[in-house]
Amino acid sequence: MKKVDLLVIGGSAGGILAATTARKVYGDIKIALIRDTNSVMIPCGIPYIFGTLKDTKKNIIPDGAVTNSDVELIIDRVTKINREDKNVITRDGETIEYDKLIIATGSLPFVPTFIPGYDLENVYAVLKEEEYLNEVLEKAKSAKNVVVVGGGFIGVEFAEQFAVDGKNVTLVELADACVSAAFDKEYTNELEEKLKEGGIDVRTSTKVVKINGKTAVETVELESGEKIEADLVILGLGARPNGKLAADAGIEVTRRGAIVVDQYTRTSDPDVFAVGDCAIKRCFFTGKDVPILLASTATGEAKIAGSNAFELRLVRENKGTISAFATKVFGRTFAAAGLTEAMAKKEGFSYITGETKTFDKHPGNLPGAQMLNVKFLFSKCSGVILGAQISGGDSVAEMINVLSLSIQNGITASQLNTFQAATHPLVTASPVAYPINAAAMDAVRKNCTILNAAK
Amino acid sequence: MKKVDLLVIGGSAGGILAATTARKVYGDIKIALIRDTNSVMIPCGIPYIFGTLKDTKKNIIPDGAVTNSDVELIIDRVTKINREDKNVITRDGETIEYDKLIIATGSLPFVPTFIPGYDLENVYAVLKEEEYLNEVLEKAKSAKNVVVVGGGFIGVEFAEQFAVDGKNVTLVELADACVSAAFDKEYTNELEEKLKEGGIDVRTSTKVVKINGKTAVETVELESGEKIEADLVILGLGARPNGKLAADAGIEVTRRGAIVVDQYTRTSDPDVFAVGDCAIKRCFFTGKDVPILLASTATGEAKIAGSNAFELRLVRENKGTISAFATKVFGRTFAAAGLTEAMAKKEGFSYITGETKTFDKHPGNLPGAQMLNVKFLFSKCSGVILGAQISGGDSVAEMINVLSLSIQNGITASQLNTFQAATHPLVTASPVAYPINAAAMDAVRKNCTILNAAK
Repeated sequence: MKKVDLLVIGGSAGGILAATTARKVYGDIKIALIRDTNSVMIPCGIPYIFGTLKDTKKNIIPDGAVTNSDVELIIDRVTKINREDKNVITRDGETIEYDKLIIATGSLPFVPTFIPGYDLENVYAVLKEEEYLNEVLEKAKSAKNVVVVGGGFIGVEFAEQFAVDGKNVTLVELADACVSAAFDKEYTNELEEKLKEGGIDVRTSTKVVKINGKTAVETVELESGEKIEADLVILGLGARPNGKLAADAGIEVTRRGAIVVDQYTRTSDPDVFAVGDCAIKRCFFTGKDVPILLASTATGEAKIAGSNAFELRLVRENKGTISAFATKVFGRTFAAAGLTEAMAKKEGFSYITGETKTFDKHPGNLPGAQMLNVKFLFSKCSGVILGAQISGGDSVAEMINVLSLSIQNGITASQLNTFQAATHPLVTASPVAYPINAAAMDAVRKNCTILNAAK
Repeated sequence: MKKVDLLVIGGSAGGILAATTARKVYGDIKIALIRDTNSVMIPCGIPYIFGTLKDTKKNIIPDGAVTNSDVELIIDRVTKINREDKNVITRDGETIEYDKLIIATGSLPFVPTFIPGYDLENVYAVLKEEEYLNEVLEKAKSAKNVVVVGGGFIGVEFAEQFAVDGKNVTLVELADACVSAAFDKEYTNELEEKLKEGGIDVRTSTKVVKINGKTAVETVELESGEKIEADLVILGLGARPNGKLAADAGIEVTRRGAIVVDQYTRTSDPDVFAVGDCAIKRCFFTGKDVPILLASTATGEAKIAGSNAFELRLVRENKGTISAFATKVFGRTFAAAGLTEAMAKKEGFSYITGETKTFDKHPGNLPGAQMLNVKFLFSKCSGVILGAQISGGDSVAEMINVLSLSIQNGITASQLNTFQAATHPLVTASPVAYPINAAAMDAVRKNCTILNAAK
């Protein structure tokens, strides 16, 4: 029987960082990571397999990410957790004893079994496994007409990559806009325009009612009765927490199947932690359970678990998920963090916006300069930043992280208004119009206008 | 006689933002801005006139930046400030009365009059005036051999642009490395390698002792006796605060000529403010007077002046200059904020470093991916971030601003270790290796190693 100090179940972002963090924090202890796949896909890289990369091998997280930290890598599947004996049983019949256990079993794609034809050939949900994705890639080679169901980030990115690859692509979204969980209308409009310019047929406010075909898909049928030709269908309808192993062991899970954890990622069993997509996510602003599953959230949680497995060493700095996103479609980058106006309204926040537009290089006539669109939301009375949305060139993704950090640390409009930023003609906006300062100033201006009028 | 509520002297970054901010904050008041040039150059864009832009007209801050905010723009020169009468006298004989005055007269390039031949033809300091720069541009057209004296940011950028333009360029720097005020040796080495790859002859630890020629420069003579052929010389030896107008009016200035101001940019006269290069700069970490002249510092100060001219409305959030820089040479971007190791040692800070390397896209085999080198400095006991240095692709400039904000707000290694960042395959590093998290983790690891050993 094998015995380790720390056992991690799951080999993706969360599992890797839980194990390697524990190595860094606790030094010379025995750590093993067990996963049930031969390889691990970079989760957010999956859409790019189908256009830019054209090879699942190019989208692998190398095993060195685990083994270079002197963590034993076991390829096997845990079938049962015995909490009383503090061990796990594997498919291959092994028993592994642990002192502390971190569960990072991730999520499974949501499959809409209520849509007739969901199980036809050439209809694929986005499972994060290499062999499965190779099968999709093989089918994609000969596909001409692709329908992507679901206009969230994954759906949008798959659609863009298939279009880059020269296919006829239709993107179907139930809501009235794509990526509407992260962006307000002016940004979703801009993103949809880019998709359309790229040749994608974008159908919002539309429901898929049926997938038709004999053995393989032939058409996708919408609520209106319209049938869209398809020889490949991608179901990008989000994912569900994979908390089954924990639930079977009697660990508390939510109705949606997410493992319940405290702010130190501890489950109802003090020796068992859970991180990433399989664990409950709490909204930074309200503490409510929110279905935001992101690798970048998983890694933060994993570091907290790995640091605190044996004693509480790393005081929890992440007080909930802030939903920090970035994506790029047809050369344009969109990024967001925190609350949109729609979400702020729904939750009842009193807010003020700050907006600006400026080029991402200066002067704006420099080659490759793109217009930046920036919108921030601030709490009206406290002045604290609640959310940010930006579109522009590649640098938008790192720019949003200034706001991600600000949201997580209660930074105010007044602080952002005069915060000192590095600027340079070739790689940022002008200091005169630096957009983080300028959008904050816009909110300050609005407050001053109210103040002046009231005098 | 003209009378305004607020008069701003100076038309560059500081002056513009002082005037436009006052408009936003105070609403309907009378504001005028007076400057002595017909046009205003984007200060940090000046080197790019000589390679990428090839036209001073493309590097102008448009007058609309002032006039669109209903600020009267006056082209004239203030020759005297009469503080008792609260008015200024101009070259054209006008008298302008003010209620509040903001001085933003900037800086003048340092001219090394101790170097014989400094005043020969075709030897130019970097004056920020269009006609002057047009003259340099005209001379540059026929120049084959250019010597740039001074390896700070301006010198490095001029050298790079002349090399891009196909000239033989020699860069001479007195210190043992270029841009050593902002970066430690491993980063200055990398930057110098890029300059050399780009064909620039980089000479560090070398002094120019003489500039030789009959009427125009012919050679630049080094301490060693070596003479470098030159038909154009650029003196990039920094700038000095232009506080003369204020000093003549009896306002307190430092020995270096910088106008002394408090944290609200108020001079010794309560109705007179000073911002930007002409005003004293205090180090964020020590409060000491530091010679860091940056447009991005000027804009922050200008917003504080414009907001507080009539009453203290904007509580000062910038507690001193943190020296946030970015530059790009031959496709590689270098950015820094706060203290280098050399500076931390000199000031006596006890610090710990956190370092990491990773690609700026994920997977790293995506087209255009660059390796990011990241180094942070944290206060050893308090954990607060003191400095950051990053090299990589274009996104480095916005990435450093996450650290600029962190430095200004006392963020710790522990907070950065688990801060939630937006990531995306095409535009950022992997969430598994996100460099801000990872470099902070490296510092946390070092502290844990000490802790574990002491147990």
